[in-house]
Amino acid sequence: MSGNDPEIQAGREISRLIELMAKLPGLGPRSARRAVLQMVKKRELMLLPLSRALAEVAERARVCVDCGNIDTTDICAICRDPRRDVATLCVVEDVADLWAMERAAVFRGRYHVLGGVLSALDGVTPEALRIPRLVDRASGGEVSEVVLALGATIDGQTTAHYIADALSGAGVAVTSLAQGVPVGGELDYLDDGTISAALMARKAL
Amino acid sequence: MSGNDPEIQAGREISRLIELMAKLPGLGPRSARRAVLQMVKKRELMLLPLSRALAEVAERARVCVDCGNIDTTDICAICRDPRRDVATLCVVEDVADLWAMERAAVFRGRYHVLGGVLSALDGVTPEALRIPRLVDRASGGEVSEVVLALGATIDGQTTAHYIADALSGAGVAVTSLAQGVPVGGELDYLDDGTISAALMARKAL
Repeated sequence: MSGNDPEIQAGREISRLIELMAKLPGLGPRSARRAVLQMVKKRELMLLPLSRALAEVAERARVCVDCGNIDTTDICAICRDPRRDVATLCVVEDVADLWAMERAAVFRGRYHVLGGVLSALDGVTPEALRIPRLVDRASGGEVSEVVLALGATIDGQTTAHYIADALSGAGVAVTSLAQGVPVGGELDYLDDGTISAALMARKAL
Repeated sequence: MSGNDPEIQAGREISRLIELMAKLPGLGPRSARRAVLQMVKKRELMLLPLSRALAEVAERARVCVDCGNIDTTDICAICRDPRRDVATLCVVEDVADLWAMERAAVFRGRYHVLGGVLSALDGVTPEALRIPRLVDRASGGEVSEVVLALGATIDGQTTAHYIADALSGAGVAVTSLAQGVPVGGELDYLDDGTISAALMARKAL
């Protein structure tokens, strides 16, 4: 039977697009089919603008040579922005974390994107994470504080310790995000680790 | 603060792509950000192929003038396929339903995609659903059976009845998909309507 062959159903090009879309994180074959159908139905409103936007990004997106952020210029908008504080460097695992920090809209310094965390298991070395480059940036004289905004996971914390060691000779303060009760968090729903971290880091009112 | 402005975070083109992706069904701002990041990171493997596939579909996808399926030719592959039975026409609400039927790989006739179901509330008229065109196709002499494969919803069933009426003079048998217990379905988890429909349609073994 040819019925299970997607090419018979929808043409080679459409099947190929569905196949590629289904590989995106958060999408599967079913949602990719729905998304592609929707696009084809809304040609002017979705298909054409998306096609143009994707082509533009494909042509222009690049990694910032300074911080590892993604932008359409060699030096990203944050590194170029003269209003950002050059004395503070925030170390994040991933560009997604950088975006999350920016949405919080409270950090006014610059970033350093590692592109992962150290992992002996996955063979991720300090060199692969641009840690030597971080030490260079931090030792340049401009930077006075490096804020480690890494995940509260074992690999994240291992990486934080490694970086703190690597920066020990750079003459900068190394800090890390506070651990504690999330805003809006109810104790009842928190895990033991978070509660004990919050208790140990308790502050006088 | 400029931190919440996505343009500052990632460049105008990338923000625009995220915005468009977030409008796709099944995606939201968060998954669109993840998807775009993934694409940009896997430039050769994802970004470029997706961009090419999307451009091709944008240029070539069209609606089959006979059945309403989506393909890259004016007459779709199913309508062109000489092995498909011209005597049976399957009426579906949407192209997604046609694809679902094709995945089941058991129907060997051709299709008629309505593009919706009748709905007084939403102002969907028989003309908007290509029902006159269905009557034309069914009355041509080639077709002997029209299978209604519409959803078991009120609007779907209203539409089925309307179509059965409209086809009454066309000299074709009008059938509809059986209702009953889904394969693998446990009675315990089925709604009352399905159980009573299955009981009323019970068959001798």
